[in-house]
Amino acid sequence: MTIDYSSKEYLAKVDAYWRAANYISVGQLYLKDNPLLKEPLKASDIKAKPIGHWGTISGQNFIYAHLNRVINKYDLNMFYIEGPGHGGQVMVSNSYLDGSYTEIYPEMTQDVEGMKKLFKQFSFPGGVASHAAPETPGSIHEGGELGYSLSHGAGAVLDNPDLIAAVVVGDGEAETGPLAASWFSNRFINPIRDGAVLPILNLNGFKISNPTILSRIDNEELAKYFEGMGWEPYFVEGEDPAEMHVKMAATLDKVVEKIKAIQTNARENRDQTRPIWPMIVFRAPKGWTGPKEWGGVPIENSFRAHQVPIPVDQDHMEHADELVEWMKSYRPEELFDENGRLKPEIAGTTPKGDKRMAMNPVTNPGKLIRDLRLPDIRDYAVDNSVPGQVEKQDMIVLGEYLKDVVKLNRDNHNFRIFGPDETASNRLAPVFEETKRQWLGEIEEPQDEYLKSHGRVIDSQLSEHQAEGMLEGYVLTGRHGIFVSYEAFLRVVDSMLTQHFKWLRKASEQPWRTAIPSLNVVATSTVFQQDHNGYTHQDPGMLGHLADKKPEFIREYLPADANTLLAVFHKILNDRQKINLVVSSKHPRAQWFTMDEAKELVDNGLKMIDWASTDFGDEPDVVIVSSGTEPTIESLAAISILHKKMPELKIRYINVVDILKLRSQTLDPRGLSDEEFDMYFTKNKPIIFAFHGYEGLVKDLFFDRHNHNLHVHGYRENGDITTPFDMRVLNQMDRFDLVKSVVKNLPNAEKYAHIVQEMNGMIAKHNQYIRDEGRDLPEVENWKWEGLK
Amino acid sequence: MTIDYSSKEYLAKVDAYWRAANYISVGQLYLKDNPLLKEPLKASDIKAKPIGHWGTISGQNFIYAHLNRVINKYDLNMFYIEGPGHGGQVMVSNSYLDGSYTEIYPEMTQDVEGMKKLFKQFSFPGGVASHAAPETPGSIHEGGELGYSLSHGAGAVLDNPDLIAAVVVGDGEAETGPLAASWFSNRFINPIRDGAVLPILNLNGFKISNPTILSRIDNEELAKYFEGMGWEPYFVEGEDPAEMHVKMAATLDKVVEKIKAIQTNARENRDQTRPIWPMIVFRAPKGWTGPKEWGGVPIENSFRAHQVPIPVDQDHMEHADELVEWMKSYRPEELFDENGRLKPEIAGTTPKGDKRMAMNPVTNPGKLIRDLRLPDIRDYAVDNSVPGQVEKQDMIVLGEYLKDVVKLNRDNHNFRIFGPDETASNRLAPVFEETKRQWLGEIEEPQDEYLKSHGRVIDSQLSEHQAEGMLEGYVLTGRHGIFVSYEAFLRVVDSMLTQHFKWLRKASEQPWRTAIPSLNVVATSTVFQQDHNGYTHQDPGMLGHLADKKPEFIREYLPADANTLLAVFHKILNDRQKINLVVSSKHPRAQWFTMDEAKELVDNGLKMIDWASTDFGDEPDVVIVSSGTEPTIESLAAISILHKKMPELKIRYINVVDILKLRSQTLDPRGLSDEEFDMYFTKNKPIIFAFHGYEGLVKDLFFDRHNHNLHVHGYRENGDITTPFDMRVLNQMDRFDLVKSVVKNLPNAEKYAHIVQEMNGMIAKHNQYIRDEGRDLPEVENWKWEGLK
Repeated sequence: MTIDYSSKEYLAKVDAYWRAANYISVGQLYLKDNPLLKEPLKASDIKAKPIGHWGTISGQNFIYAHLNRVINKYDLNMFYIEGPGHGGQVMVSNSYLDGSYTEIYPEMTQDVEGMKKLFKQFSFPGGVASHAAPETPGSIHEGGELGYSLSHGAGAVLDNPDLIAAVVVGDGEAETGPLAASWFSNRFINPIRDGAVLPILNLNGFKISNPTILSRIDNEELAKYFEGMGWEPYFVEGEDPAEMHVKMAATLDKVVEKIKAIQTNARENRDQTRPIWPMIVFRAPKGWTGPKEWGGVPIENSFRAHQVPIPVDQDHMEHADELVEWMKSYRPEELFDENGRLKPEIAGTTPKGDKRMAMNPVTNPGKLIRDLRLPDIRDYAVDNSVPGQVEKQDMIVLGEYLKDVVKLNRDNHNFRIFGPDETASNRLAPVFEETKRQWLGEIEEPQDEYLKSHGRVIDSQLSEHQAEGMLEGYVLTGRHGIFVSYEAFLRVVDSMLTQHFKWLRKASEQPWRTAIPSLNVVATSTVFQQDHNGYTHQDPGMLGHLADKKPEFIREYLPADANTLLAVFHKILNDRQKINLVVSSKHPRAQWFTMDEAKELVDNGLKMIDWASTDFGDEPDVVIVSSGTEPTIESLAAISILHKKMPELKIRYINVVDILKLRSQTLDPRGLSDEEFDMYFTKNKPIIFAFHGYEGLVKDLFFDRHNHNLHVHGYRENGDITTPFDMRVLNQMDRFDLVKSVVKNLPNAEKYAHIVQEMNGMIAKHNQYIRDEGRDLPEVENWKWEGLK
Repeated sequence: MTIDYSSKEYLAKVDAYWRAANYISVGQLYLKDNPLLKEPLKASDIKAKPIGHWGTISGQNFIYAHLNRVINKYDLNMFYIEGPGHGGQVMVSNSYLDGSYTEIYPEMTQDVEGMKKLFKQFSFPGGVASHAAPETPGSIHEGGELGYSLSHGAGAVLDNPDLIAAVVVGDGEAETGPLAASWFSNRFINPIRDGAVLPILNLNGFKISNPTILSRIDNEELAKYFEGMGWEPYFVEGEDPAEMHVKMAATLDKVVEKIKAIQTNARENRDQTRPIWPMIVFRAPKGWTGPKEWGGVPIENSFRAHQVPIPVDQDHMEHADELVEWMKSYRPEELFDENGRLKPEIAGTTPKGDKRMAMNPVTNPGKLIRDLRLPDIRDYAVDNSVPGQVEKQDMIVLGEYLKDVVKLNRDNHNFRIFGPDETASNRLAPVFEETKRQWLGEIEEPQDEYLKSHGRVIDSQLSEHQAEGMLEGYVLTGRHGIFVSYEAFLRVVDSMLTQHFKWLRKASEQPWRTAIPSLNVVATSTVFQQDHNGYTHQDPGMLGHLADKKPEFIREYLPADANTLLAVFHKILNDRQKINLVVSSKHPRAQWFTMDEAKELVDNGLKMIDWASTDFGDEPDVVIVSSGTEPTIESLAAISILHKKMPELKIRYINVVDILKLRSQTLDPRGLSDEEFDMYFTKNKPIIFAFHGYEGLVKDLFFDRHNHNLHVHGYRENGDITTPFDMRVLNQMDRFDLVKSVVKNLPNAEKYAHIVQEMNGMIAKHNQYIRDEGRDLPEVENWKWEGLK
């Protein structure tokens, strides 16, 4: 029997389903008992502090119900991204009604008892969030911080040609920068190889306490806005439910058929020109179907519908009747049977099995994840059998490796590189020998380079938000990738990384959620070499920013050469459930470690380097530590000066790659034990720590350790247009200052005052030379490690 | 004599001026001597490492020359914002040619010798940046990080009715989130009371190594994009200079007349409807007038024009001829006299005095700044003669005070409040009794509230980037304001604050730059009360983020009650040249300090509170410290428990408001001396520090001090949908855990094991109650400070 999905009867069922979703959503706001209102409502049925939001709910429930309809009608592979803030009930209610919720949380049965529990837990201590948080079936996007819904959707449909991401964008959210820029994601979706994003602007007119910008312009101006960004807008507007059902059904049919037509055309005719994808502007009142007004001012269709619209709680029952009236306006008796189960004819409108948006496999992608096939890093290794002799650009070496990662995983379509127009600048150009930038815009040869309608690199929009957001969408749906950025401008996505971390952390608490590939973030073009970019381009603070988070989910690697960078990548590329920050130089730099050393550095996080130490297993006089590329160069240069001038000095040199390994075990079980820590760093010998980032992080890491005889030389927030070595001098992280720091902290410092003087002389000489010649002293530029004899 | 500014003759002069600017700009890239190329070019004339950018320069020089023309023609009050990255030469060259540069830097004379110095210093160690950095005359916007040009321009023209901000937006920049959202700034500019922003999209087609998105759509789609956002685009396109001069002149005339017509209409007819402001799409090739190609691939009109287009340097003279040919293509002999001075007929095209964009007073606003008239904070003080008896919402009290700040400064038009749709949520609603939200969109009563075409509050766009960026523009041009945000989402503008700090720091090094009003940032809706918002809304990390920066420019205040908050505001509102972060609670909280105490807390940064201490001038057994609202409540509650159970215990309680006062003087001269520090905190007694933020910051602050017997209870990155007290328990920052921490760190801890047990019992009781009842224990909810008897 074929179903007429546009018949009055069918739409009546959709309406009933919608009312059920609304009923359940209001119930979650207020009630903790008596869910079907079979008894007169009493104080103990109501929460002590109903908290949550109403404004966005009914509109989204309407959209959800109609998406269910087209999934059924067209047998779609679709999932839901909830952009608007605080619509937690939407995905909970709908997944409860279609049975997904009960499958995942068996105690939340589809009956009165389960409904009662469902109501009580919402926005309740120990319960579920008021967003589409990780505990929400079908969610990959919490939306607690706004702006990333479209980027997430776009990332999710890459390499998923049958998938449609239905992305509901809040009209408040649409005013944020990241969202405003993310409409351009349609330049990066290939109609043959990727799926489709269907944006649905939830234009309910209000945000927290203001109208929304897009709601106060007419449709002509609105249409221009979206057409100008390459979308074809379809308008669905009104407030009469019956009319709206007809309009929405017709429009969604059109839109789905349009998407299919675009894909069919592209796939049958190999037509890879940029399609004009459809999107929907859904204009229905905020707080639709809720209380019309309160205290003489409008609630429905006003910002006042944003949160809890009627003041009823356990201690304030005066208006309980209005709450009952509101809830009963959905006619629950028509929707649920005596036991509280959704009536079968209504339940028939939900998709089944994995077709339910809440159960779409991409939203909990454990089974879909295929490990990356990784080449052997030894094939790319730099020969450092004699340390310091070879000069290489670490990021180019990494580019060669990544080129082969692309090649080996070509058939699995599960690895991508994202960036804000910096892949070439960040020296990953070797990957372009194997793949191109994916770009659906026009291509003009020979002005352009490496652009193609499909490719594994997405970097043609100058937006960290967009690039990082698409990577998030990509890994949240079970694929692998990296985001490569200038170190300073990684800070543009500080809060996105925080939100992703929060997602990982809360998702890990859900036993049913499978681990997802780690989010790999490469910070290059770093603080210590910004010759022509200068001070604005200098900020290594991402290290401290992420170190504030829960250590289980954060790794920070500072490989000092290409082999170590390769070893880091070998470790992280098939990693799960973390944010991996890798700080790497892109400039020509001396190379140090054999691949065996590099692996040990990465596996253990740090290593005493015997060829740069003179303690020979004894207690050293001083421990010199470095973490990061330039700190390592300068530390080794300082060691060679020290060894020449003070051959008797027992120096221990330690390189630290995984900086958070230094964290105390009381805070991070992965950290070194106190015994191990003392074994490396001693209990009281002076430690001269040359560090890539701000010094506070190192002090924090050492605070809980015995040895506080610590002297950190990090980035002291001094910068300018200048040479790489001058940057180190400006921050006293150069070899001369490190030597001074060692000498000054020896017990017999005064004996070596002449060395301090000599170093001061070198610094003065440098300062003069740099001002005159605009380049570094030849003895610095040409310095090479000669070993310790 | 009237000048025909559209005559062929005049445009020929504009062209000559443009060529001169281009010549000077190329010279700055490459040369350090022989600036007029009078001698054959030799290696020593060329920089060792020419670094800088060319792509954006000539187009911007063209725009600048034509803006000069309309300034002259219409006697405009206009300044220039350079959005594109790396166009440093533009503002240097143009201010050098119009004499401003020499007025500010007298050694940079308008002759051969000065030109030589000008060339050498550019993008050279110790010289000037490749951006429009603070050393650049006329700049308020460095643009090292992209995306904020329009927000800055919009902020600058507020309350400057005659001012036009000519904002050049890079087409790469236009792809960033913040820029994409900032087009909506036209909703916030009142045509009667504010000036105008004239956006000029510099559509040169390419960014670092990709084409730009907006350059690869046709003008119809482009026009829709801008019309959809409420602008009227005017297109100027081409590459033939002669034609382009005619087009640009005609278009700029039209656009300026349009702006004037809008303003005249609005001002004469009191018409405050949202105007459709004009903007210009300027489409000329990237690297225009530069080398056409190199090595068989295009340079001009390609991404390859981005940086230094011809590989010539001191050590590579093979292609020096091409450089000479390029520079001579501008026919310098027609432009400069023998002495290197711009010929008078060309110099005649630049505006004079303050009409020069480089000398516009708003760009160095010292003389324009009027201190705010501040009410007496005592008039708003909470009566805390008996501490802890009154409950208030600190932000409401602040709102009352700010209402009067608005009132007192009404006539000076120099104070504004900015936010992302959160002013009401953040409890500043009292200000709406005195002023409204400025919003030029449609207003629909009674759905809307507090909207008007003019008002001192701008918060009707849900974008932290836009709101904070407009405040930056407002203070950079010499006015005062605050940005109020949810604490967690302040992190959205982490990198904006970094860039503003970097601006302040570098600007302070310029003796000619006057100090500007501080950027005041209020973090409220904080981590410790996010009942229904939950974990995504919890991030106090801005404290650590800003603490990484140079301390001279950063202040972080954590007032624990309304009086202290008032005292903080009294201190910061007429402050200069800083970023002030204020962390404040908006919820009903007990009040503690008299206004005298509050002032002392703010003046000294911290204070021993005698009424909560039992050491009576002796060496204490334990020092309890709190910084922040909830930490203070819990510390005092812990003290009252401790005093009851251990009346003999000598407790010292310290409240810290200005947390960075704890920084060692070796890092911050403003910090406490070691002697003072020991006087407050002792050298070795246990310190239990209850802190609002992440613990690492406190450990960092204490690292350089004697007393490391420190036990911090901060935000441990645990959060959820839950009650305010449960949040504290989750993070072990609650009274019970603080008591435990005190007891455990006493020398005779085992004697008090029963107290630890009792506290564990209380925590267990809390945990059960919160799960059952969804609210805090009555004994916690109803707890009041009763003093120490």
